[in-house]
Amino acid sequence: MTATPVRPTEQKYEVKDLSLAPLGRQRIEWAGREMPVLRQIQERFAKETPLKGIRLVACCHITTETAHLAIALKSGGADAVLIASNPLSTQDDVAASLVADYGIPVFAQRGEDSETYLRHVQIALDHRPNIIVDDGCDVVATMVQERQAQLAELIGTTEETTTGIVRLRAMFKAGVLTFPAVNVNDADTKHFFDNRYGTGQSTLDGIIRATNILLAGKTIVVAGYGWCGKGTALRARGMGGNVIVTEIDPVRAIEAVMDGFRVVPMSEAAVHGDIFITVTGNKHVIRGEHFESMKDGAIVCNSGHFDIEIDLKALGAQATEVKDVRNFTQEYRLKNGKSVVVLGEGRLINLAAAEGHPSAVMDMSFANQALACEYLVTNKGKLEPGIHSIPVEADKEIARLKLQAMGIAIDSLTPEQIEYANSWTSGT
Amino acid sequence: MTATPVRPTEQKYEVKDLSLAPLGRQRIEWAGREMPVLRQIQERFAKETPLKGIRLVACCHITTETAHLAIALKSGGADAVLIASNPLSTQDDVAASLVADYGIPVFAQRGEDSETYLRHVQIALDHRPNIIVDDGCDVVATMVQERQAQLAELIGTTEETTTGIVRLRAMFKAGVLTFPAVNVNDADTKHFFDNRYGTGQSTLDGIIRATNILLAGKTIVVAGYGWCGKGTALRARGMGGNVIVTEIDPVRAIEAVMDGFRVVPMSEAAVHGDIFITVTGNKHVIRGEHFESMKDGAIVCNSGHFDIEIDLKALGAQATEVKDVRNFTQEYRLKNGKSVVVLGEGRLINLAAAEGHPSAVMDMSFANQALACEYLVTNKGKLEPGIHSIPVEADKEIARLKLQAMGIAIDSLTPEQIEYANSWTSGT
Amino acid sequence: MTATPVRPTEQKYEVKDLSLAPLGRQRIEWAGREMPVLRQIQERFAKETPLKGIRLVACCHITTETAHLAIALKSGGADAVLIASNPLSTQDDVAASLVADYGIPVFAQRGEDSETYLRHVQIALDHRPNIIVDDGCDVVATMVQERQAQLAELIGTTEETTTGIVRLRAMFKAGVLTFPAVNVNDADTKHFFDNRYGTGQSTLDGIIRATNILLAGKTIVVAGYGWCGKGTALRARGMGGNVIVTEIDPVRAIEAVMDGFRVVPMSEAAVHGDIFITVTGNKHVIRGEHFESMKDGAIVCNSGHFDIEIDLKALGAQATEVKDVRNFTQEYRLKNGKSVVVLGEGRLINLAAAEGHPSAVMDMSFANQALACEYLVTNKGKLEPGIHSIPVEADKEIARLKLQAMGIAIDSLTPEQIEYANSWTSGT
Amino acid sequence: MTATPVRPTEQKYEVKDLSLAPLGRQRIEWAGREMPVLRQIQERFAKETPLKGIRLVACCHITTETAHLAIALKSGGADAVLIASNPLSTQDDVAASLVADYGIPVFAQRGEDSETYLRHVQIALDHRPNIIVDDGCDVVATMVQERQAQLAELIGTTEETTTGIVRLRAMFKAGVLTFPAVNVNDADTKHFFDNRYGTGQSTLDGIIRATNILLAGKTIVVAGYGWCGKGTALRARGMGGNVIVTEIDPVRAIEAVMDGFRVVPMSEAAVHGDIFITVTGNKHVIRGEHFESMKDGAIVCNSGHFDIEIDLKALGAQATEVKDVRNFTQEYRLKNGKSVVVLGEGRLINLAAAEGHPSAVMDMSFANQALACEYLVTNKGKLEPGIHSIPVEADKEIARLKLQAMGIAIDSLTPEQIEYANSWTSGT
Repeated sequence: MTATPVRPTEQKYEVKDLSLAPLGRQRIEWAGREMPVLRQIQERFAKETPLKGIRLVACCHITTETAHLAIALKSGGADAVLIASNPLSTQDDVAASLVADYGIPVFAQRGEDSETYLRHVQIALDHRPNIIVDDGCDVVATMVQERQAQLAELIGTTEETTTGIVRLRAMFKAGVLTFPAVNVNDADTKHFFDNRYGTGQSTLDGIIRATNILLAGKTIVVAGYGWCGKGTALRARGMGGNVIVTEIDPVRAIEAVMDGFRVVPMSEAAVHGDIFITVTGNKHVIRGEHFESMKDGAIVCNSGHFDIEIDLKALGAQATEVKDVRNFTQEYRLKNGKSVVVLGEGRLINLAAAEGHPSAVMDMSFANQALACEYLVTNKGKLEPGIHSIPVEADKEIARLKLQAMGIAIDSLTPEQIEYANSWTSGT
Repeated sequence: MTATPVRPTEQKYEVKDLSLAPLGRQRIEWAGREMPVLRQIQERFAKETPLKGIRLVACCHITTETAHLAIALKSGGADAVLIASNPLSTQDDVAASLVADYGIPVFAQRGEDSETYLRHVQIALDHRPNIIVDDGCDVVATMVQERQAQLAELIGTTEETTTGIVRLRAMFKAGVLTFPAVNVNDADTKHFFDNRYGTGQSTLDGIIRATNILLAGKTIVVAGYGWCGKGTALRARGMGGNVIVTEIDPVRAIEAVMDGFRVVPMSEAAVHGDIFITVTGNKHVIRGEHFESMKDGAIVCNSGHFDIEIDLKALGAQATEVKDVRNFTQEYRLKNGKSVVVLGEGRLINLAAAEGHPSAVMDMSFANQALACEYLVTNKGKLEPGIHSIPVEADKEIARLKLQAMGIAIDSLTPEQIEYANSWTSGT
Repeated sequence: MTATPVRPTEQKYEVKDLSLAPLGRQRIEWAGREMPVLRQIQERFAKETPLKGIRLVACCHITTETAHLAIALKSGGADAVLIASNPLSTQDDVAASLVADYGIPVFAQRGEDSETYLRHVQIALDHRPNIIVDDGCDVVATMVQERQAQLAELIGTTEETTTGIVRLRAMFKAGVLTFPAVNVNDADTKHFFDNRYGTGQSTLDGIIRATNILLAGKTIVVAGYGWCGKGTALRARGMGGNVIVTEIDPVRAIEAVMDGFRVVPMSEAAVHGDIFITVTGNKHVIRGEHFESMKDGAIVCNSGHFDIEIDLKALGAQATEVKDVRNFTQEYRLKNGKSVVVLGEGRLINLAAAEGHPSAVMDMSFANQALACEYLVTNKGKLEPGIHSIPVEADKEIARLKLQAMGIAIDSLTPEQIEYANSWTSGT
Repeated sequence: MTATPVRPTEQKYEVKDLSLAPLGRQRIEWAGREMPVLRQIQERFAKETPLKGIRLVACCHITTETAHLAIALKSGGADAVLIASNPLSTQDDVAASLVADYGIPVFAQRGEDSETYLRHVQIALDHRPNIIVDDGCDVVATMVQERQAQLAELIGTTEETTTGIVRLRAMFKAGVLTFPAVNVNDADTKHFFDNRYGTGQSTLDGIIRATNILLAGKTIVVAGYGWCGKGTALRARGMGGNVIVTEIDPVRAIEAVMDGFRVVPMSEAAVHGDIFITVTGNKHVIRGEHFESMKDGAIVCNSGHFDIEIDLKALGAQATEVKDVRNFTQEYRLKNGKSVVVLGEGRLINLAAAEGHPSAVMDMSFANQALACEYLVTNKGKLEPGIHSIPVEADKEIARLKLQAMGIAIDSLTPEQIEYANSWTSGT
């Protein structure tokens, strides 16, 4: 571990152990196989350098996939600095390889404490970014609160989590969003795939690695039926689970019902569940009253962005004993004699206990990120302050590149069909 | 059958046989059990009469569910006239009961020819509607083309099909949409449910009634992966089919791939399919070249709004013989020695061979229609010309009423959660 | 309708209306497309006439598929007489065509009463059968009880229902099964397909035709998790239902749990269910105490062989009023103010309200029946009294013919693999 | 590592590192939570000691679940010795804990070579077992071939793999099976659950841990549609894969077709697959000709018992280079320029790259093993040489204990139903 962390200008990284670089590089290369879209963008960026001269900060989960985004941004000419968006998600070998093999400054260590994280945010802001690629909106929110003077240098920001978008909307409402923010999450090729298929698979992967439990026959409670919740519920059923969904939005709730899931309030779900997964973007979705009524040995984890969905403080207060029972797995013995098992300390379970989203989904999400950065630079000065969508053509282009890389051909409209689609006079 | 059809002012209906009314009434009442949302709206309308004095034309599939919409509109004070939107979908007993039991003028007969249909559109326009509830945009398009003078009396129109919305958009682009149109299809409680779950179940129902074929083990080609296509593909798989999807949009195509379906161009799908279902909203999706390469005995049908998705003219030209082999089922013997079986003459198979969408989905779709009519009247003079969405609160209200009627409780946000959702400063 | 029914020697049929024959023939021919296996057997039978001189009685559901079995048996040389195994399942047009077009004596009318049914059993026995193809074991049981003298002429019997096998086992235990019975249900190509995929699809088809109800979002209770129950539960989930299974066998119950279904006793399921389907083979699976606790408007139907699974007598006693609300749909208004809706009078719903199993599954079931008859005749005098399985080679042959007809090729073992499969010395 | 391995009488173990025992114990205890059935049997065994004085050898995957079986057998009084059935499946911490914490001799190290394995088999036979709990039939086959003299002391053997049963059948046919063997695999509570749900989940788990690949949208080829293949195909679809099945048995092939899977020969599947999984129990299912036609980067792995299903020797001969690309993941660069990726060296991927079957399924499998050992001892001298099934009552008892532990109640037959089930006279 580096002893005294320093500013980027002085020493360009703070990672666990540079000797892990070869393993990291091997894994980064492996991930690249499943990321043909980002690769094609990286190749174009290398030729066109659309980000030349841009100081960029990316606050992300430091994984093999993020490595490819960082490489693409650097290929595009950006002077990029990476920090970890989550203390438990950093893959130390990847961080090492980015520094050692690709010359990209990274400030991230698995298991770093909150203080270190906040220090990294400050290091990132010291880089005086023109572009911030944010993940949960922490860097942007800190800049707005603490570095007003730097806002003049900021061209814009991109955000890919639902959670971050909610915060940006609140900022816009509060009148403090004085620059353009691109909602990468809004791209179909992002939220349809990353949130649904990525979260779906990797959440179960995290649970299985943490517990080696059989999902078939278990009652699995999914809190939240947004895209992440849909994906998680779908895959939980695909593994033989009996899924209960909880929601606060009536439209989503009726959708879950029609999809064949049982929908009940959490107070009732708490009694039936064997495994609980929160993916709501809100806080304390599972709280004291719920722990109290759970079955002995119930397993609780989170796959939402922040670690606040499960009220662990309340659980701690209800517990007489907390002990490690497996990696990433802690058992809280309650006063009522039953135990509750918490995975990954309530942090994103797919990143805590598994490897995060598979490369194939991050390929599209990060292709959106890369194109969003290019879009901000290309349209510098032209975009209103506020939240912008990715242009729909970028979205379609990403899907097209992906299909092509998978060897899948699709139909195109015939001239007759194009004409029909544009006419309104011909009917029955 | 009525001998000489007359204008509404003279004789208020043109239905097959009024003596079918008792059967129609029984079936209308049965459908009502599954339509609790519309019933609650109808009860409020009866009290508040928000449509008092409004001349209204509804061009719909004349089914038991439509009957409840018509009754609700009448309860709200509207002077409503109904015509059939599709020659094969009219349920003659329902038409009879609406006239005889509920005093609502209906002009519709199952199997009516195009000429009759067009005459009914004229009858409807003679009613000088203030509101048009349209289904595929035929009445509106005719009014714009042939009854410019009446446009001054038109408050607005509602449209619930994807097909109709495409036409309205083309009209808007062409500068001829000079009044507000409410896109009922845009409501989540409409397209999530009606297009997906309604079309999904009823399309297979139509195919099974027409053919009594086992779906398990069949290769089923679904053309189009919009909401209707998604629902159809999902249910086809749910019945044990091996589903192939064809698409022209790359984002939808990659979504179908990730959902586990095989995606290929129609030229390739044509070779593998046992059953073909079109739900694209476009024309000639299956055409001459495709028929030519199909397996002997391949079954072809449509669940898109208009009967143009399958190029039956081309098929007729390729055939040496056409014969009825079952109700709604015709076999075309091709010159190449193989046969192609067409269901319901290429018209909406769920309405041709079955009973259309189940009441439970139409409950929400028609609740949206009723609220859209009220919205147009309440906001008379305030809405810009062009296409408007249903207010999101109406959408949520419908979902809420539906859940309540199903006895399903959901969570609501705690004060702490509401505060969190509105803040942006608290992060990791 | 024939006025005075007479014995086969005098007049060879008793059907509803011979003028329905053309429609029946068209439908029989349509079914034939999906029955390539039975067709190939029929063609061989026509050449080899293995049943020459055999007097045969078949007690079956008189459907288009049964028609092909009857034709195959006749082609094989059998002197066959058909009676209906179920009062509600007879397709009168098919019965007419079998008599008029194919010269096969049929005694069956849709809706015939119990007395008529029992009279038909007697007519069948008057035929002095050498082979009985039974369906539920009624003909065989009657022969054993009332026609001991004829047993000497009986070569054997075939039985294809689970229900009938249970009765044959009880007869064997009681020492009265003095002849060989072939358990057609035991063939993999029978129970895997007919009971599971056939019952699964056609049961839902029957419910939808009877009610036009949306299955998505409904809580569907399936009583029994044998092959029929598995198929029904699978398809109910495939249509978006939330499925509850009830069982009495712990192994089946745990299998249902692992398949992701909720398993509870009927007393609890009764409270939650929107739709109830019995497929147990036992009686009074849903009874007074259950009706009492059901939701208002709960729908109850049966897909097991006999109409005894639902205790309609008890329900009648609890009701203050019974009225028809749709075809095959009766509403019982209970004293507790709620109503229970019964479909098809508790008889097999797929045959009462729909068309029974699709041809493609009956193709294999009836191929087994035909080969079972041939097997009994070929092995006359060699088979012990008791219950025999279909030879496994017949089973494989049927599967092979089916795959071939579907154009599906599979692998075969290499010489190396055959050797490996037969050796035991080579291990890790 | 122990330096010079010695005979059990001298030194009672050969494990990697005894200091791993605490971690092993923690994991063994965690697994115990999901094994309530085996726990109840262990508690009874501790009281009744039915295996008192029995020398027992168990050749198993040395996992946390096996630990509980070993503990139960020891509790029952057995003098048990454990050896690993597979070089890649041993969990060294578990082996250490069994020795250190539970006093059970274990001879197993992860990654041991064939020579060591064969030496361990000899050590096991030196123990002069009365009972052999075998897994793939290696110990039994070796005894029959090399230790004829010891057969007199052998009461019998139990076998739980399909592969082992095939070998036992071949031995029986060859006349060398002169003692009773209990087919544990035959128990419904074994093969329904372990082979299907266990293999299904853990195979995908192994693939994901080895590759972190997204399964959604991938074409996944499952070779073999026995219970293991069914489970694997089901879960692969549940994760969004598009599944192709290959088979050599026509009945299983048509079942796969009806389950909605594409069925083709391996020669065709080879062209389409992204991921290949063999679960056939036979050898060289994927061989030279198949590798040649695969897509670049195709992933190949095995979940059948032995590592012979993929012809790695042929692949090696076709390759110009082999390199490690991730843990348990090797890339073969072929002469045709494409690469093939092999996971876990072709050994059981769920044990090589993941943790084997989840405890909940092994609970039932090993409960069967324990009861099978008791059955052999209790019936010593009474069982014919040959292959015996587990008594059906043991099967039901295991299911009953499992349901009870899961808190699931089921129905029981009423007296009226019992009477009905036993009668044969009452019919329609």
